[in-house]
Amino acid sequence: MEFPDKKPSGFEQNGVIQEVNSSVSLNQRIMDNRPAPSVIVIFGASGDLTKRKLIPALYDLFCKNAMPERFAVLGAARSQLNDDVFRGKMAEDIKSYSENKEHLSDEVISKFVKNLHYISLETENPDDYSRLKTRLDGLDAELKTGGNYIYYLASPPKLYETIAQSLYSQGLSLSNDDSVSKKLIIEKPFGYNLGSALALNQKLLTLFHENQLYRIDHYLGKETVQNVLVLRFANGIFEPLWNRNYVDYVEITAAESIGVENRGGYYDTAGTLRDMVQNHLMQIAGLVAMEPPANFDSTSVRNETIKVFQSLIPIPADRIDDFVVRGQYISSKIRGEQVRGYREENDVNPNSRTETYVGLKFFIDNWRWAGVPFYMRAGKRLPTRVTEVVIHFKKPPQHLFHRDNKEQPGNRLIIRIQPDEGILMKFGMKTPGAGFKTQQVNMDFHYSNLGNINISSAYERLLLDCMSGDSTLYARGDAVEACWRFVDPVLKAWETNPDIKLFGYPSGTWGPVEATGLFGQPDLDWRYPCKNLSDDGNYCEL
Amino acid sequence: MEFPDKKPSGFEQNGVIQEVNSSVSLNQRIMDNRPAPSVIVIFGASGDLTKRKLIPALYDLFCKNAMPERFAVLGAARSQLNDDVFRGKMAEDIKSYSENKEHLSDEVISKFVKNLHYISLETENPDDYSRLKTRLDGLDAELKTGGNYIYYLASPPKLYETIAQSLYSQGLSLSNDDSVSKKLIIEKPFGYNLGSALALNQKLLTLFHENQLYRIDHYLGKETVQNVLVLRFANGIFEPLWNRNYVDYVEITAAESIGVENRGGYYDTAGTLRDMVQNHLMQIAGLVAMEPPANFDSTSVRNETIKVFQSLIPIPADRIDDFVVRGQYISSKIRGEQVRGYREENDVNPNSRTETYVGLKFFIDNWRWAGVPFYMRAGKRLPTRVTEVVIHFKKPPQHLFHRDNKEQPGNRLIIRIQPDEGILMKFGMKTPGAGFKTQQVNMDFHYSNLGNINISSAYERLLLDCMSGDSTLYARGDAVEACWRFVDPVLKAWETNPDIKLFGYPSGTWGPVEATGLFGQPDLDWRYPCKNLSDDGNYCEL
Repeated sequence: MEFPDKKPSGFEQNGVIQEVNSSVSLNQRIMDNRPAPSVIVIFGASGDLTKRKLIPALYDLFCKNAMPERFAVLGAARSQLNDDVFRGKMAEDIKSYSENKEHLSDEVISKFVKNLHYISLETENPDDYSRLKTRLDGLDAELKTGGNYIYYLASPPKLYETIAQSLYSQGLSLSNDDSVSKKLIIEKPFGYNLGSALALNQKLLTLFHENQLYRIDHYLGKETVQNVLVLRFANGIFEPLWNRNYVDYVEITAAESIGVENRGGYYDTAGTLRDMVQNHLMQIAGLVAMEPPANFDSTSVRNETIKVFQSLIPIPADRIDDFVVRGQYISSKIRGEQVRGYREENDVNPNSRTETYVGLKFFIDNWRWAGVPFYMRAGKRLPTRVTEVVIHFKKPPQHLFHRDNKEQPGNRLIIRIQPDEGILMKFGMKTPGAGFKTQQVNMDFHYSNLGNINISSAYERLLLDCMSGDSTLYARGDAVEACWRFVDPVLKAWETNPDIKLFGYPSGTWGPVEATGLFGQPDLDWRYPCKNLSDDGNYCEL
Repeated sequence: MEFPDKKPSGFEQNGVIQEVNSSVSLNQRIMDNRPAPSVIVIFGASGDLTKRKLIPALYDLFCKNAMPERFAVLGAARSQLNDDVFRGKMAEDIKSYSENKEHLSDEVISKFVKNLHYISLETENPDDYSRLKTRLDGLDAELKTGGNYIYYLASPPKLYETIAQSLYSQGLSLSNDDSVSKKLIIEKPFGYNLGSALALNQKLLTLFHENQLYRIDHYLGKETVQNVLVLRFANGIFEPLWNRNYVDYVEITAAESIGVENRGGYYDTAGTLRDMVQNHLMQIAGLVAMEPPANFDSTSVRNETIKVFQSLIPIPADRIDDFVVRGQYISSKIRGEQVRGYREENDVNPNSRTETYVGLKFFIDNWRWAGVPFYMRAGKRLPTRVTEVVIHFKKPPQHLFHRDNKEQPGNRLIIRIQPDEGILMKFGMKTPGAGFKTQQVNMDFHYSNLGNINISSAYERLLLDCMSGDSTLYARGDAVEACWRFVDPVLKAWETNPDIKLFGYPSGTWGPVEATGLFGQPDLDWRYPCKNLSDDGNYCEL
């Protein structure tokens, strides 16, 4: 018997965990490369988006040392304010809306707001843009930002063209020098229908190049949406199953428990199909369904998502009812409290036919997905707030444990985008005890398991990407057009054909029961993440 | 707008969870069909197995109302006891060893032990079997068990043939009437090597039919071992990946933290290859690697596992070192306490070359597994007690997130057989924050999540199956022979070739470091479920 030369201590390497740990620290927030210095102009600086999302996101980046070494934020709006008043307002808003409460410090806030500036501007007045140019030139010279300007259109959509045109007129858009960048971030909605989206794209492309345009879809900024790509392409086990051979159908849900609140005026002109489906849910579907990109860069990734949108089988205008169900919430009691119906909401037409719920079915005509139905639904005043993607896998071909297995559902992979971000796999296993009975159980992962991880806000991620010149998570013009092209026939049919039904559904329920009919099979239905009529926003069941 | 006829209450069906619940209650312990009345004879009734496992298992079945309506247990051993004394002893043992403490009740125990009987028997004395026959006939007539006898060989292996022969001589083995069943349960070890196993099989088959023989492998009675079949064949997502295209390699581990304790005399004649690998681990490998059976019955399932064993590529006798590493624990300090080495244990030869650790590699030569290495290890005095199967899936073919992904391990599915029974999937997901960094996280399921589920003991399950005539979870003769055939050249080489090394490894470590060499690649190694030298039996890391 040969004893090893090394005595016990020499064996210790054997006792060490060999699990390969990620080389990336979870808390690694500090950027390897901070973006180049720049000036960010926010049009609509007195609006809700600026105070609730944009400034707090910039502040959070600032705290993480992710902002450029030198930068300025120039707020532009109609109100007459000076820099100090603007800074004071923004400092208050940061305290109210920053997502990282532990970062709140008067000292850091006061350091941050020194980078804020303000210019009063009548959007329609060309002279004001000349003042804007002077102001920008001054900041640029002072901060040595090298002419790097980002324009954020947080103003009403009807002003997008005017602002872009005025920037162009002042020579503030195109530049001949490649190293100098002018970027235009456009908030949703991008267009009102296919025609207006095409027109807006066309107009903007006379004033900016496509690679200067950053069309925001804040869903793409969400960690869990981006994780769809990692889940699919960084794991060997999912991609082989991710196709028509193994997937039965796909469900994408975005449920809100709230109603339209104080946005009735806007919402009544938009509706759920425009507000949620055409942009956010279609983009998610693009990531779920795309082919693996050749590289992980903006062009490669977006080249693949556009192929998905281009492969959508159009919904036949004369069969809208078979593919789309729309609903509108009506008054109901939720936990003893009477809530208003949509038509009773402020600024909503009492005879409105605007939908607050859409359920739809579509198909993707390509080798991967042919014949696999995709179901999508979005709505307000549903029982809970949840956004999730559910991949329903086919049942096993052989019913080996058939005595008890007739009712055995197929496997499901649930990607929870919000809240309680995570991944859930439903699979069958043996019920303890005699025989071979099976039951479905859950195998799950929650982001919260990672400990005190503060998931960055979508705007934080997107603003940082724009400053760094990465447009991967922004919608490209052709994709926006393709998505509009898909939903446009539905919008047209709803407008022109009074026979297409709009179903009322009581607030706090999962929308019209008629939406179940989309599945076309008696044993299929939507997944209901919770059953209780509830307005507390909790994700009740998994 | 059409409002539905039914007002809110009519929608409630929409809020109901549509998750298909298993139709089987978790607590369903009561058998749909209780086994037919029978008499169970236990040879070796004064031994450890009887008091620790068999009688408590029968009692637990009794509590679950799973025993036959009428039954008797007849203990047979050399000691001179009467029924009452035997009953008293067994009542005490039930209290000490029953796995379901909540079932312990003096009233139920006293009801149960009324079914116990005892006969004093010299195994080698033919006359005693004539007394046994008289006693059995009496019990049979009294209980109307219709001649249904189960013989449990819990005696030393050298007595198996004598007992079987004597039963045969008394006309207690074969029967012409199909409805009358005589079953023989044979405890491990079944043979000492290929030759003796062949001889034992051959002998038994002159006395009993194969379908009367129940060769125990208590690992097959474990819930989580059986769950391997359910996991594979009741889920649509695993089977497509369960082959050489997607599996990189498979690891099967059975680690014990204890040493040989008071079993040194037996162990020194056996060793780990005989005690753990040839039977338990090979059977697990059979379930992991088998093709889907045509039906879920004893013949179909065992027809598939034997195909796995028959497809094992023999380990070349002249290259044992490349495929097998053996070790023996040496004295070491574990948490400050000096523990004895194997050669210092009671009843162990101080110059023993018996292995207490085996690591081995093998291949299965069939379409599903060709080229996929299977690694197996078992040992005593390792850092923890754990039995697990790890399916290592291949890495994704494309390194899309390559900047950070070079170290990204492949997916792993870990089937934890004991303790902390469950399933764990390791997969890559996006590290929260900027960029697309990935990290491995766990998605897991624990049996304990199911609430207060008392997993039945392996013996409970196996005894019940035998009473019901289901031999699916028992080893068939051809399988036992095939497993012996596989390990026999290794045993022979170890016995005859003094050049084959036996490595010492300090107690509390993961065995000889040389076992890592089996992987043959510098970046591959065993999975180490925990790193700490520990003797507390906890499963420290997952």
